[in-house]
Amino acid sequence: MSSATATATPMPKPEGLEGVVAATTALSHVYGEEGRLVYRGYDIHELAGNATFEEVAFLLWNGHLPNAGELADLNEKLDGNRLLPESVITILRTLPRDCAPMDALRTGVSALGSAEPALFEGDPSLDQAIAISARFPALLATYARLRQGLEPIPHKPGLRTAQSYLYQLFGNEPEERHWGPLETYLILLADHGMNASTFTARVIASTTSDMCSALTGAVGALKGPLHGGAPALVLDMLNAIGSAENVDAWLTHAMDNNERLMGFGHRVYKAEDPRAEILRGLAETASDPAFFALSKTTEDRALAMLEERKPGRRLYTNVEFYSAAVLAAVGLPGDMFTPTFAVARSVGYSAHVLEQAANNRLIRPQSEFVGPTGLTFVGIGER
Amino acid sequence: MSSATATATPMPKPEGLEGVVAATTALSHVYGEEGRLVYRGYDIHELAGNATFEEVAFLLWNGHLPNAGELADLNEKLDGNRLLPESVITILRTLPRDCAPMDALRTGVSALGSAEPALFEGDPSLDQAIAISARFPALLATYARLRQGLEPIPHKPGLRTAQSYLYQLFGNEPEERHWGPLETYLILLADHGMNASTFTARVIASTTSDMCSALTGAVGALKGPLHGGAPALVLDMLNAIGSAENVDAWLTHAMDNNERLMGFGHRVYKAEDPRAEILRGLAETASDPAFFALSKTTEDRALAMLEERKPGRRLYTNVEFYSAAVLAAVGLPGDMFTPTFAVARSVGYSAHVLEQAANNRLIRPQSEFVGPTGLTFVGIGER
Repeated sequence: MSSATATATPMPKPEGLEGVVAATTALSHVYGEEGRLVYRGYDIHELAGNATFEEVAFLLWNGHLPNAGELADLNEKLDGNRLLPESVITILRTLPRDCAPMDALRTGVSALGSAEPALFEGDPSLDQAIAISARFPALLATYARLRQGLEPIPHKPGLRTAQSYLYQLFGNEPEERHWGPLETYLILLADHGMNASTFTARVIASTTSDMCSALTGAVGALKGPLHGGAPALVLDMLNAIGSAENVDAWLTHAMDNNERLMGFGHRVYKAEDPRAEILRGLAETASDPAFFALSKTTEDRALAMLEERKPGRRLYTNVEFYSAAVLAAVGLPGDMFTPTFAVARSVGYSAHVLEQAANNRLIRPQSEFVGPTGLTFVGIGER
Repeated sequence: MSSATATATPMPKPEGLEGVVAATTALSHVYGEEGRLVYRGYDIHELAGNATFEEVAFLLWNGHLPNAGELADLNEKLDGNRLLPESVITILRTLPRDCAPMDALRTGVSALGSAEPALFEGDPSLDQAIAISARFPALLATYARLRQGLEPIPHKPGLRTAQSYLYQLFGNEPEERHWGPLETYLILLADHGMNASTFTARVIASTTSDMCSALTGAVGALKGPLHGGAPALVLDMLNAIGSAENVDAWLTHAMDNNERLMGFGHRVYKAEDPRAEILRGLAETASDPAFFALSKTTEDRALAMLEERKPGRRLYTNVEFYSAAVLAAVGLPGDMFTPTFAVARSVGYSAHVLEQAANNRLIRPQSEFVGPTGLTFVGIGER
C-alpha cells in the first residue's frame, strides 16, 4: 500500500462546539437553564402578543422599538420590496413541482443576489435586510402556487407580513384568526442566539461574502431535521397516534423501540422552552379542540414517561411540538412549516449578518487531525 | 423609552474561533508552523505532480489511493455525471449575463438538489459526492458560455476533470500545457482542514440537511474576499504595478496608505504555504516570462518590505498569489478564478460532508450576550 503504516486512531466523537462561545451578540439570548429568551433586552413574553412582527424586526435590526414614523417607514419599505424580479419567478417556475419548498426557497434566495445586483451587491446593509426579509414570504407563496399549477398572486400593499404571506398563498384577505397566530409565531421564531443556521449565516458573512450568500446557506442549514426541518414530523406523529386513548400505547411502543419522539428536548434549554408555552396557548385557541386535546395528552404523557424512563434528563417540550398545531390551524400544509420558520428567521439571519459585518473577524476554527501521517506516494501499478 | 436602562456594554472583538478545535477530521491537516499540508497521510508534495486529480479525489473520499480498477470505475462515474439536467441549464440561462460566476454556481448547485431528487435526496453518499463534483465544472463552463451568448458544449467522455472543464469552456481539446497546470492547481486546492467554507458545509451537514444544501452554503462562503474570493485581485494588483521597475514605488505607496497587499498572510500558516511553493513553479513554466518576472519581483520585494515594516509578523506568500498567474496562464478570466477554486474544493467539501454525516453531532455553539436586559414593552405612542 505505502511505505508507512497508516495510524488507525479511532475518531473521537465531535463535540459540536457545545458550550463554546463562537461570537458575541447583542441581538438575542437563550437562557437555557431558566427557559428564557430575550430579544434586544425584551423577554419574549413582553413582545409576543404586544408587538407586531414588523416592530420586532425593527427592534432586531436597529436595537430599539420603532416610533410611529419609523414603523410607517419600515412598513412602506417592506411593501415596496415584496415584488419578485421576473427572472426569479421564471426560476421558481422551472423547478420541478415536487421540489421541496425549502429547496425552492434556497434556490430563490440565491437567485435574488444575481437578479438584483444593484440592491444586493456590496457590503451587507439594512436596506438589504429589509428587502430580503420582504422577499422570503413572496418567494414561498409564489412557489407554493406554481407547484399547484396556479399563477402567483401579486402582493397587496398595506398588509403586514403575516397577512401578506397568507394573501399571496391563498389569494384572499386572511382572517385575523389565521394571521394573528401566524404573526405571533413569526415573532417567537425571529431569532434564537447562535443556533446552527444563524451561525452558518455568520460564518459565511465573516468571509465578507454577501447577504444573499449568507441567507442561502442559512436556509440550507435550517432544512436539516436536527435543526428546523422536523415540525411536520410532529404532525405525522400526532396523526399516527390518532386519538387521546391511543397515546399511552403508542408512546410505550415508540419508547420501547427507541424511536425518537418528535417535539421534545433541546440542546440549550434545560427548562421549558418559553416559545412552547406561548405556542401552546395559541394552539389551544386556534386548533380544532379534538386535535388540541390529542396534542396536550400526548405532551403530558410523553413528558411523564420520559421522566420515568430517563429521570433527570430534563427533557421538555420544544418549539416544534406546538408549532405544528399552530401552523396547521393557520392553513399551512406540513411541508410549508419549516419554510415559514425561515420567514421568521430571515429577520434574525439578516440582523446577525449586519452585526457580524459591523465587527468582523473571519470565523476559521481549527480541526484535530486523526488520520495517518508520513505516507509515500506509489504508482498505481503497485497499489 | 422603557422602564429599564439599556446596558451600553461595548462589544468585544469576536475571536473568530481562532485556535478552537471545531471538529476532528482524517481528511487533511494544515501544519501551520511548519508550512505543511497533508491529505489522508500524504504530504501535498507527494501528490502534486504524481497523482491525477481523480486519484486525489478518490483518496479524500475513500481514505486510500485507488488501484487501477477503482480509478477506472471512478472515471466512468465522473463521465456519467457531467451532463446537467435541462432544468438547471434553463436556470443558468435565466440568470442575467452580468451575474458573477460564483453566484451562478451557488444557484446552480442549489438547483441540482431539486432537479435530481432521486440522486440528491436522502443521507449524504459517495455517489452524491462524485455526482456533485462532476457537475461543478459543467455548471461553470455552461454558465461561462451562456453569458457570452454561446451555447453550452456537451461533455466529452474520457476526459479528466481539468481537461473536461477546459473543453466545455472553450469548445476544443485543451493542450497539456493548459490542463496540466490546472490539474495540479485542482490537486493543491482540493482540501485544507477546517477552513471557513468547509466548516460552513459541515455546520449545514450537522443539521442532517442534504449534500446540495451543504455545498451551496460552502460556495457562498468561498465567495468572500477574506476566504476564496480574492485571487483575481492579485492579478489586478500586478496589472496596476505594470512592470518590475514600478514595484518598489507601488508597494511603498500602498503600504504608506495601509492598503492591503493581495496574496500575503494566512490565518494558519506561519511559514510559507506549501501550495504557494508549488504554484510558483507552475507559474514559472506556464506564464509569460515577463509576467512571471513581475510576479516574482513583486513577491520578493513585498516580503522584504513587510518584514521591514512588520518585523516578526511572519507574513508569507499565500496560495492566492501564484494561483492568479497559473489560472491566467491556463486561459481563465479573472472572475473564473474563485469558481475554479470551488471546482477543486467540491471534492473536499463533499468528503467533509460524508465524514460529518458518518459521526454526526449538531454543530451549535453558544454566544456571549452583550445586549441590554430587563426592558419592558411600551406602546408605540410612548416611544
